[in-house]
Amino acid sequence: MNSLNGDIQKRIEETKKRVSDLHAELPRWGLVVWTAGNISERVLVSGAPSEEDLFVIKPSGVRYEELSPEKMVVCNLDGDLVEGEYKPSSDTAAHAYVYRHMPEIGGVVHTHSTYACAWAARGEEIPCGLTMIGDEYGGPIPVGPFAIIGDDSIGKGIVETLRNSRSTAVLMKNHGPFTIGTNATKAVKSAVMVEEVAKAMHLAKELGQISPIPQEAIDQLYDRYQNVYGQ
Amino acid sequence: MNSLNGDIQKRIEETKKRVSDLHAELPRWGLVVWTAGNISERVLVSGAPSEEDLFVIKPSGVRYEELSPEKMVVCNLDGDLVEGEYKPSSDTAAHAYVYRHMPEIGGVVHTHSTYACAWAARGEEIPCGLTMIGDEYGGPIPVGPFAIIGDDSIGKGIVETLRNSRSTAVLMKNHGPFTIGTNATKAVKSAVMVEEVAKAMHLAKELGQISPIPQEAIDQLYDRYQNVYGQ
Amino acid sequence: MNSLNGDIQKRIEETKKRVSDLHAELPRWGLVVWTAGNISERVLVSGAPSEEDLFVIKPSGVRYEELSPEKMVVCNLDGDLVEGEYKPSSDTAAHAYVYRHMPEIGGVVHTHSTYACAWAARGEEIPCGLTMIGDEYGGPIPVGPFAIIGDDSIGKGIVETLRNSRSTAVLMKNHGPFTIGTNATKAVKSAVMVEEVAKAMHLAKELGQISPIPQEAIDQLYDRYQNVYGQ
Amino acid sequence: MNSLNGDIQKRIEETKKRVSDLHAELPRWGLVVWTAGNISERVLVSGAPSEEDLFVIKPSGVRYEELSPEKMVVCNLDGDLVEGEYKPSSDTAAHAYVYRHMPEIGGVVHTHSTYACAWAARGEEIPCGLTMIGDEYGGPIPVGPFAIIGDDSIGKGIVETLRNSRSTAVLMKNHGPFTIGTNATKAVKSAVMVEEVAKAMHLAKELGQISPIPQEAIDQLYDRYQNVYGQ
Repeated sequence: MNSLNGDIQKRIEETKKRVSDLHAELPRWGLVVWTAGNISERVLVSGAPSEEDLFVIKPSGVRYEELSPEKMVVCNLDGDLVEGEYKPSSDTAAHAYVYRHMPEIGGVVHTHSTYACAWAARGEEIPCGLTMIGDEYGGPIPVGPFAIIGDDSIGKGIVETLRNSRSTAVLMKNHGPFTIGTNATKAVKSAVMVEEVAKAMHLAKELGQISPIPQEAIDQLYDRYQNVYGQ
Repeated sequence: MNSLNGDIQKRIEETKKRVSDLHAELPRWGLVVWTAGNISERVLVSGAPSEEDLFVIKPSGVRYEELSPEKMVVCNLDGDLVEGEYKPSSDTAAHAYVYRHMPEIGGVVHTHSTYACAWAARGEEIPCGLTMIGDEYGGPIPVGPFAIIGDDSIGKGIVETLRNSRSTAVLMKNHGPFTIGTNATKAVKSAVMVEEVAKAMHLAKELGQISPIPQEAIDQLYDRYQNVYGQ
Repeated sequence: MNSLNGDIQKRIEETKKRVSDLHAELPRWGLVVWTAGNISERVLVSGAPSEEDLFVIKPSGVRYEELSPEKMVVCNLDGDLVEGEYKPSSDTAAHAYVYRHMPEIGGVVHTHSTYACAWAARGEEIPCGLTMIGDEYGGPIPVGPFAIIGDDSIGKGIVETLRNSRSTAVLMKNHGPFTIGTNATKAVKSAVMVEEVAKAMHLAKELGQISPIPQEAIDQLYDRYQNVYGQ
Repeated sequence: MNSLNGDIQKRIEETKKRVSDLHAELPRWGLVVWTAGNISERVLVSGAPSEEDLFVIKPSGVRYEELSPEKMVVCNLDGDLVEGEYKPSSDTAAHAYVYRHMPEIGGVVHTHSTYACAWAARGEEIPCGLTMIGDEYGGPIPVGPFAIIGDDSIGKGIVETLRNSRSTAVLMKNHGPFTIGTNATKAVKSAVMVEEVAKAMHLAKELGQISPIPQEAIDQLYDRYQNVYGQ
């Protein structure tokens, strides 16, 4: 029992370090202003959730340049604080809901990146008009319902939208994007890409019609990218 | 009397340092070009204005990378120079008017940030189409009247527009945004956010209709954010 | 034979260094996010392809800040790996096709730069509405066919579009820009310029009609720039 | 004679240093890509042109990060090379024409900044819809004729457009902005501001009508800014 706890503690520290470092990607890619955006990652022991099933998340209202591994917060899947000196992010309940209902998910990211927010404010999905969107999302990037912070409605909206989708990103209506991945790095990559394709599709639509990609081609792109790309 | 003066002098120096440092946020977030933008903060002693009621403001026409605490200017609420080797910002009268008529305000920021200026040039308020706008401004960001530098008309326009509004930002028509806060840091945050939401709402409107947020939801968002968010 | 091989090896190392360094230009000019974009250069010995006819290209899925000359990959004109510890870029077949069919070409660049992608998503050529476009491209920037990764269709589309064009850039439909040059530096310059003019022409068209430049003037601009400009 | 020449040489060296340093402002404010943009300054002795009447300008086709005072080029008002190891900028004839016909002008800047180019591509003046435009330009920013490099037509177009205008900036049709000032620093400031206001006015027009500023107010703004602003 003691040795198991020791192992969990080590994984928690590693996860804190990784989540703290990953937050630097958000201002780097221009996805956030001031304190508005957060990353979490599930703590895995030997690749699986521990019995306690915990995740590490950003503290609330702390600026990106002041973040450090020690300031990160550990929560259980009810969103309750387990370890940390700060209050967890105000979006913690949504992250917890995702981990609770999608056991295969290891990372969640939320931003208010500008172009993605513009699609979200209209409640309009981002069309799949570039091969890179087919590669990464396997189709359009869907819109989730309007939901207010304070209960499980945001988390529920994310899970219901993404559960039956190839997409790792959802645009929560009038709010902004949430992205998921098997770990936090992949969820961050999805958050970076969703803003990029939100901008490219915005620009394309401004001046006319996006030329549609045949569904068969999208299927091929998605399959190849998920299985062949990278090292 | 001497010790009181000594205390004020200490607060003045602290305020100069803080206001000088905060000016770095303006180019950092892309809110200004060349010298166009300024921040001021009221000098507080034990949390309240001193008898002299002073504020610290940027010198006129000095570039951001050349600013330092020593170059900051101290004025009284008539906008007259009390201490400093430089001429105060050409917007000093507007800042002074706000401090004179809104005793609860401790910081004022003025920029010509690009997207906010675009709304201001049309004389059009920024709609509340994202939860982050509800959080921060509690509704649309209002437009103030067209006013020329040289008398109190800019200050008056700011105060009359913001006095009965939840918003901490006003778009002065054909001019640009002014933001207020209980201290300068909060006014800077509002200046950063107003440009961000000006851009997101611009983009959203370019391609269609912004999906409206129910007033009740806006009220909830605003209440929670003002009372619960942060550490 | 040994001395020839030694010479090739030296050119390979120089080319690896140059291609690795040039990749820093892609994030610098905002042409890529994450790992999406790649540069290659043909290995020349005494200014001509060697008997083996090789080129150096980026490894697949490696981030720009982790690139180094040692990680670069050497391929032959069939796109087969000749030297290197990593898998070559997933766009290697397209680069190889260009080198195979355009012996005068020494460098190829592929990005997903945002404004260029917006024109590509509509399948619309970039008009020649600025003298800088006449200088660099000698006319509009053409669109190539929609093609899926996996066979030679991308390379074929690039070559068929550019072979009879003055342009060093092609917008592959629903995909993004490919650029060519007598060496990699020139292909990178074309990739930087194509995004810039894609943006300027996008903005110009948003608010009205682009004033056309007479064909005679375009011919003059192109001739002068190719023959007189620079040191 | 010797001492006069010595004095001129000293002023030339100072001017080379200043013009070289000022070129860093062009990429800093995002006004240029690759090598496309140049600054010149007239060499003044005791505040007046010397008998030789010379100016310092950027060498052709050299990248900004490789510039240094020694690489700068000295030309006479016919645009002929007087001193320097490099070929002068391909826009030298236009700079020379301005100095020849506007003796009060001490600095000229040319860029292809993106939003200004978009207005230039349509041949449309930038309206005066913000007080900052009234301050700096005293009215709309005018369009000059389409002109081809190779004779005096660019210089002539600049001079004829600006001679009877308050504006220090002209948008040469299908080409880009040229700005002037009593020295190079002021011409650079005008180049920075013209891009900023080109963007703000572009955005304003995208979503509706710009609210016009009364001519009387523009006159007041221009007069105050030229005579009162700054230290």
